[in-house]
Amino acid sequence: MSDIPKSHPRYKSLMTRQRLAEHAVTGVVSMEGLTSHGRGEAFDYLIGEKTPAVALEAEKLAARVLLAARHPVLSINGNTAALAAPQIAELQQASGAEVEVNLFHRTEERITLVTNVLRDAGVVVSEGPVERCVPLPHDRGLCRPEGIGNADVVLVPLEDGDRCEALVGMGKIVITVDLNPLDRTSKMATIPIIDEVTRALPNIAAECRRLRAAGDTLVMPESFDGKYFLAGAIDAIAETLHHALD
Amino acid sequence: MSDIPKSHPRYKSLMTRQRLAEHAVTGVVSMEGLTSHGRGEAFDYLIGEKTPAVALEAEKLAARVLLAARHPVLSINGNTAALAAPQIAELQQASGAEVEVNLFHRTEERITLVTNVLRDAGVVVSEGPVERCVPLPHDRGLCRPEGIGNADVVLVPLEDGDRCEALVGMGKIVITVDLNPLDRTSKMATIPIIDEVTRALPNIAAECRRLRAAGDTLVMPESFDGKYFLAGAIDAIAETLHHALD
Repeated sequence: MSDIPKSHPRYKSLMTRQRLAEHAVTGVVSMEGLTSHGRGEAFDYLIGEKTPAVALEAEKLAARVLLAARHPVLSINGNTAALAAPQIAELQQASGAEVEVNLFHRTEERITLVTNVLRDAGVVVSEGPVERCVPLPHDRGLCRPEGIGNADVVLVPLEDGDRCEALVGMGKIVITVDLNPLDRTSKMATIPIIDEVTRALPNIAAECRRLRAAGDTLVMPESFDGKYFLAGAIDAIAETLHHALD
Repeated sequence: MSDIPKSHPRYKSLMTRQRLAEHAVTGVVSMEGLTSHGRGEAFDYLIGEKTPAVALEAEKLAARVLLAARHPVLSINGNTAALAAPQIAELQQASGAEVEVNLFHRTEERITLVTNVLRDAGVVVSEGPVERCVPLPHDRGLCRPEGIGNADVVLVPLEDGDRCEALVGMGKIVITVDLNPLDRTSKMATIPIIDEVTRALPNIAAECRRLRAAGDTLVMPESFDGKYFLAGAIDAIAETLHHALD
């Protein structure tokens, strides 16, 4: 399958797709995860394949919130691990957050596979018995009671809208990373980051390091305006469309 | 994998994704094809998950062109077969066009698998030796000399931009079906149909039947304004974005 010519105008995008496809063969990424990635590709194209200024604002706010949290957790699924394991390790180190694996298409085998991908990149993964802490049908509600169950702040990159909504309903501050500003995930999030995950996580990590070096006392904001970040992303897309046929 | 609750707000979309995932396990759909489908899903969401008026115009024009052609060919890949085999059979019957299987990730095994999916749905698939008729590196250039090689009009749903450009460069009238109006495929096409494939093909077939019943002599237009169809699709997306946060 590695016969994509370097001359192809979408070479980088096709190679990332191929890497995810290889992770799908081993089971790290679910088949449905490949399709979800495609949705992300489309929206990344529309926001210009770079971090919009408004997304960087959201990333800086996310860093502040992770550092001000009592118990921050990074909830990682197959796609995020396949795309961004080194960036997760970097963010964990910069923020001190716990990392828990949480899969939409959950099997014990896939949990182990994703955990191994993360550990190979230097991530410290918390493990232990899970319970249905999140009020959702099926295995979607499973998580560690002392992990995501007990978190006040959860960063959930590439998360399902249902789960995002349920976590918000539990009173948690939910930070999402998702390229689609119209997705329920982004609409439900406390802080929706509309950016590509390998760009977003290092930006959050860099701001964590900057804030820590500055040594200020960080206070958790009392309210958040998620819609501001959505509107900014939609403006970025409208700008791309405006010049699409130039 | 069939544990998606019917209560999920994106149930239909998730079920289609799952069907494609099953076709990926057998090899009809390539892993990369799953990602491509995701890109399509995103743009379908943006055009409102219905046929825009301008797309229906393009579909009616496509019908006229298929019927006026000397040798029209429907070029079918794995995703199109997996999503729309019955609709391809219907369009073949209505238009009289030849059907040839043509894969981006081409292997003899996948050609056979896709051919079988089409035949099971009643499509008459043309087979025979292939040559590099299309000026492209690798197997991308292979097709039947007396099929796509000799066609004056080619309908290529969900096609790669490179191949679309090469076919146009050979002087053929190229009709595409692709949900992304910004994709090179759509920009290069003679007639870009910005619509979902299971909606687009029956619309073309219906217009073929109507034109045949009317019995008029169909003359091939001398020129085409592809940009008109792209601009209309972009307007439809802008409209969705405008109301996204209402």
